[in-house]
Amino acid sequence: MLRGLWALCALLVAVPAAAQVEQSTTARADANAPTIASPDGRISVSVTTDGDGRPLYSVSRGGKQIIAPSALGFLFTDAAKMQRNFRIESKASSSVDTSWEQPWGEWKTIRDRHNELRVRFKESKDLGRVMDVVFRVFDDGVGFRYELPEQPNLKTAHIADEMTEFALTQDGEAWWIPGSEWNRDEYQWNRTPISSVPLAHTPLTVKLKDGTHIAFHEAALVDYSGTWLQRVEGTKFKTVLIPSAGGAKVVRGTPFVTPWRTMILSDDAPGLYMSHIELNLNEPNKLGDVSYFKPSKYVGVWWEMHLGTAGWGSTPKPGAATANVKRYIDFAAKHGFPGVLVEGWNVGWDTEWFANGKGFQFDTPAPWFDAEALAAYAKNKGVQIIGHHETGGSPSHYEDQLERGMAFAAAHGESVVKTGYVTDAGQLERVGPNGEPLREWHDGQFSAQHHLRVLEMAHKYRIAIDAHEPIKDTGLRRTYPNWVSREGARGQEYNAWGEPKNAPEHEANMVFTRMLAGPMDFTPGVLSLTGKGGTPILSTEAKQLALYVVLYSPVQMAADLPENYAKHMAAFQFIKDVPTDWEDTRVLNGEVGDYVTFARKQRGGQDWYLGAVGDEQARSMEVKLDFLAPGKAYEAQIYRDGDDADYRTEKRHAIMIEKRRVTAADAMTLRLAPGGGVAIRFKAVK
Amino acid sequence: MLRGLWALCALLVAVPAAAQVEQSTTARADANAPTIASPDGRISVSVTTDGDGRPLYSVSRGGKQIIAPSALGFLFTDAAKMQRNFRIESKASSSVDTSWEQPWGEWKTIRDRHNELRVRFKESKDLGRVMDVVFRVFDDGVGFRYELPEQPNLKTAHIADEMTEFALTQDGEAWWIPGSEWNRDEYQWNRTPISSVPLAHTPLTVKLKDGTHIAFHEAALVDYSGTWLQRVEGTKFKTVLIPSAGGAKVVRGTPFVTPWRTMILSDDAPGLYMSHIELNLNEPNKLGDVSYFKPSKYVGVWWEMHLGTAGWGSTPKPGAATANVKRYIDFAAKHGFPGVLVEGWNVGWDTEWFANGKGFQFDTPAPWFDAEALAAYAKNKGVQIIGHHETGGSPSHYEDQLERGMAFAAAHGESVVKTGYVTDAGQLERVGPNGEPLREWHDGQFSAQHHLRVLEMAHKYRIAIDAHEPIKDTGLRRTYPNWVSREGARGQEYNAWGEPKNAPEHEANMVFTRMLAGPMDFTPGVLSLTGKGGTPILSTEAKQLALYVVLYSPVQMAADLPENYAKHMAAFQFIKDVPTDWEDTRVLNGEVGDYVTFARKQRGGQDWYLGAVGDEQARSMEVKLDFLAPGKAYEAQIYRDGDDADYRTEKRHAIMIEKRRVTAADAMTLRLAPGGGVAIRFKAVK
Repeated sequence: MLRGLWALCALLVAVPAAAQVEQSTTARADANAPTIASPDGRISVSVTTDGDGRPLYSVSRGGKQIIAPSALGFLFTDAAKMQRNFRIESKASSSVDTSWEQPWGEWKTIRDRHNELRVRFKESKDLGRVMDVVFRVFDDGVGFRYELPEQPNLKTAHIADEMTEFALTQDGEAWWIPGSEWNRDEYQWNRTPISSVPLAHTPLTVKLKDGTHIAFHEAALVDYSGTWLQRVEGTKFKTVLIPSAGGAKVVRGTPFVTPWRTMILSDDAPGLYMSHIELNLNEPNKLGDVSYFKPSKYVGVWWEMHLGTAGWGSTPKPGAATANVKRYIDFAAKHGFPGVLVEGWNVGWDTEWFANGKGFQFDTPAPWFDAEALAAYAKNKGVQIIGHHETGGSPSHYEDQLERGMAFAAAHGESVVKTGYVTDAGQLERVGPNGEPLREWHDGQFSAQHHLRVLEMAHKYRIAIDAHEPIKDTGLRRTYPNWVSREGARGQEYNAWGEPKNAPEHEANMVFTRMLAGPMDFTPGVLSLTGKGGTPILSTEAKQLALYVVLYSPVQMAADLPENYAKHMAAFQFIKDVPTDWEDTRVLNGEVGDYVTFARKQRGGQDWYLGAVGDEQARSMEVKLDFLAPGKAYEAQIYRDGDDADYRTEKRHAIMIEKRRVTAADAMTLRLAPGGGVAIRFKAVK
Repeated sequence: MLRGLWALCALLVAVPAAAQVEQSTTARADANAPTIASPDGRISVSVTTDGDGRPLYSVSRGGKQIIAPSALGFLFTDAAKMQRNFRIESKASSSVDTSWEQPWGEWKTIRDRHNELRVRFKESKDLGRVMDVVFRVFDDGVGFRYELPEQPNLKTAHIADEMTEFALTQDGEAWWIPGSEWNRDEYQWNRTPISSVPLAHTPLTVKLKDGTHIAFHEAALVDYSGTWLQRVEGTKFKTVLIPSAGGAKVVRGTPFVTPWRTMILSDDAPGLYMSHIELNLNEPNKLGDVSYFKPSKYVGVWWEMHLGTAGWGSTPKPGAATANVKRYIDFAAKHGFPGVLVEGWNVGWDTEWFANGKGFQFDTPAPWFDAEALAAYAKNKGVQIIGHHETGGSPSHYEDQLERGMAFAAAHGESVVKTGYVTDAGQLERVGPNGEPLREWHDGQFSAQHHLRVLEMAHKYRIAIDAHEPIKDTGLRRTYPNWVSREGARGQEYNAWGEPKNAPEHEANMVFTRMLAGPMDFTPGVLSLTGKGGTPILSTEAKQLALYVVLYSPVQMAADLPENYAKHMAAFQFIKDVPTDWEDTRVLNGEVGDYVTFARKQRGGQDWYLGAVGDEQARSMEVKLDFLAPGKAYEAQIYRDGDDADYRTEKRHAIMIEKRRVTAADAMTLRLAPGGGVAIRFKAVK
């Protein structure tokens, strides 16, 4: 049925049928200014050309223009730009209202309800090139992309840059991290006036003066470069495609489509997170059966490396030493964690780390790691090892070994592999088509291709991928469900050695920016609240628990050391209980960078879980429990900040664990300490 | 002597001699933190590396840090970046105090007094690459460049980007135009907080909160791409090299040097203009005799095209029609203008304008232009035609005809050619090494090469170049003196058809931004104050006169139509009198974007000229005349705004012309109307 609906849509919007479709859709006011509204009529997009034939679009919400007429087009490295001298040749519109299921996720069922407008622009002189721009307008946002048909004067597009503008009509606040070659998106967020943003990565979240929240991002980044958003002047932004080593940032033969340029529009911050346009603008699952992956938690050999007490290589001692790994397997088995991540297990770490990875072997264990014995030991305990493929920034080298590496992982009972792309060389190393060395950006076209090659090979071996230092997330988990999670933000490791450590507001920033793109393997749960050399983490203990609800990922680590958890067993219970797969998700409240409260319902169960995190301020918030099933009783197992808890003092460890009986008719006051949080399991009473 | 001093400097700073030089210079505090101060000791530069081996420099002025430690380095498309893991291998310092003469210019004699520090950085691992960074510290600013020696692991540098940072320690105001592929720098200036600049072209001028003025720019852009300045966050900027069609933005074999990164430092706006570091950081004249060029004024077939009453091609009628050109020759001869610019004289305009120029012929007159007859007619009248080579944005096509075009110009008595690079294709069209089409930026490496090829060919034919829609000016007129002027900013033509027209503050912005780079052929003097369709120009008549003093160019147009000058003969007298070559220049006062007053002394004469322009505010300023020769009497011929003059009304034409006798002991009150100006000739009394 789903397939049938999609086929119907495809038919409705097919370009050759444009004239027919035109007749079947509501007449528009002016053939030169096509418009399309959201199903609820609140958002509308208008398309036109100006006196110089520049294609322009604008966006209104509630009758108020949000995006002033903004240009569309391309620069090429080998041809005149497509930006002026266009006329609108045809238009077509259609509607979709369908639902689909995530195999795992924040919500089980996703509704996709939108109206679509396709506009064909044709150059009125010279080359007579055409480009289609397709707009999909949802009740909570807009996506649009370019579709460049096959045509005589554009056989291969060598795109120097995409010239898509976003001219906001109001100033306001913005939350952003810089577009940068360095650091793989691992920044804390800037909060500035919109009119002070320089070059920003996406998602870029803004709150206009009138209160409208907008998150700019992209969807379905396939065989194309990711984009940054460059403020041009005032509150006008434009796309800046992320570079490639070749002359063009993107090289594609026609026909092809670009990623969707997206903007979620909402009255408030929670509405940003509740939007599904990112997933809806991706294609359905193209892999088929992905039942080999089960959402689950894991522990592993990781935090001790970041603390510096063990190494990825042999110094000061190998974290992946067989005996040490057994210790983690024992801990996982005892506490019900299905996975044990092992980093530093393979050949190469003593020579290749931060040295471009060319010596890493993905099927050859280091001398200290007995792969056969550990695979058997884990299996016997009902646990599996999560593999680790650190490329050291050399994806070409990794691709050479890709099948061997995945085969090795599968042969050792692994169904999840964590990949990594750390390099201090700046860009990723790639061997070019003629054997020449090339350097590619983490978010460039080559990287977009590479990650999909990895996913397809992993799928062949029934393996899911958790990519670190990855390309940005653009919702491709819908199409490639085995891309279960990734990093792509400043994670817990910065609380080991970061200068500075993650600020208390970090996660409240992330929820409304980075997390709009998709899951993140943040690795929460460091209940010791202690980084390298005994330095304090800027969090309370309860907040570490809340992060399991706040930061969605279908693979979720309990990142601390077993010996540390042994000292925090009461709190650890929440980590043991909390699911990693959800039937439903509600954002109960929130302000970007200040605080947020999530309620999520366990998939395949009756329990709800609540997580709230704040910033450096103490905060008290009342939440209604009307998300609970009406008339049903729940035991609220509450893990909250102690009354004197404070991230700035040793009282960061003050945690109160208490139980209350509640129903959907109740409300609850959540008190967050400075740097604090609260985690609650609402256990359905039988 | 000059040559001898330079040779001595070269010897002192030669890298192989670094160890020796070290001994001969003053001992520095710390071998790992070399420092160098300006001759007056006020400015100092410190160089160091951080814990990750990042090369850093910082700049202080008066003991206060102005530029916080800022990174240096490169990204490559084919190799690991050069940005970390460096140590300082050696350093050397030297001093220069010399003077040299401009063949024409704002000042006859230029003093070059600076201290130099050369630091060699070497990678401590992997490739062991080295780079030298050379700092020259003047009393009024700092320049530094990279010098990449020949070395085994860097034979050819494929530069993806230059990673030079400028981390300002204070916020303040900034005046900037955007870095953009479009519009060839033809913008009005933005005035925003420094912390709100996005991607800026250079010169970028800022005024820090403590009053320090800084202009960031570059010098000696040879065989390299120009740079934009991207604000990264807060008040930190970095270089973003302007793209090339090829993969790398710059491709250079080692050894090579980059352009100088420059910052003029001043207590006030006038001090920015008075700096000579832009010229001093360029190499001396390498062309030899350039006596074929004489600074001079010109009239020509130009404004009527912008008004739309004549065409470059045959519609509505050719401006370059023989009879019309004769009219201009007659006018020039009658009023003493040596040059007559003729646009639209050659084959191609009817088909090639805004169509990439591939049909332009630079040695074939259009049917309406009798080249032989007009050359003879002009010569007979003691006038010469200024040639015009509009490439339509196809420099490759132009290069194919370059020698023929210059030979044609020379054969027709032309000693100045105005070139042009207008295109609506976005970038310049270039035929690549294998015949493939490529698109290059106006400020990219190819353009830098192209302009020098044009200059060298022009010099062979004893022709000077006035480049429009050019690469940015970086002081190369010192090395290639026949590059006499250029455009590269929003000129007078915007007052014909611009939407909007140039604002009253435009020129007060330009003086302290664009004009710091070098001369501009702005084409002032539209005394009719009337654009296309009778629309008003936002200027008073007196201001049009003042621009001849304010905006330096050794070729200076009287841009209005002869029939318009006939109605303004009294004011026109100033245009006839004002020189285009100066012995000395003083900036008497000024604030960026608000107002400025220049006094310039005629080269080879006794007269001084004063020009002051303001913004939309009326303004009264007292200036001392102590620039005049002491004890000497002058007749001040004053062209000032009428008492009720106002750019917003028909009173923009109100001008008062009066004479006074003055001496150096006098002061004078300058009253500027809204949108106004004042022009004064101080004629030495015999």
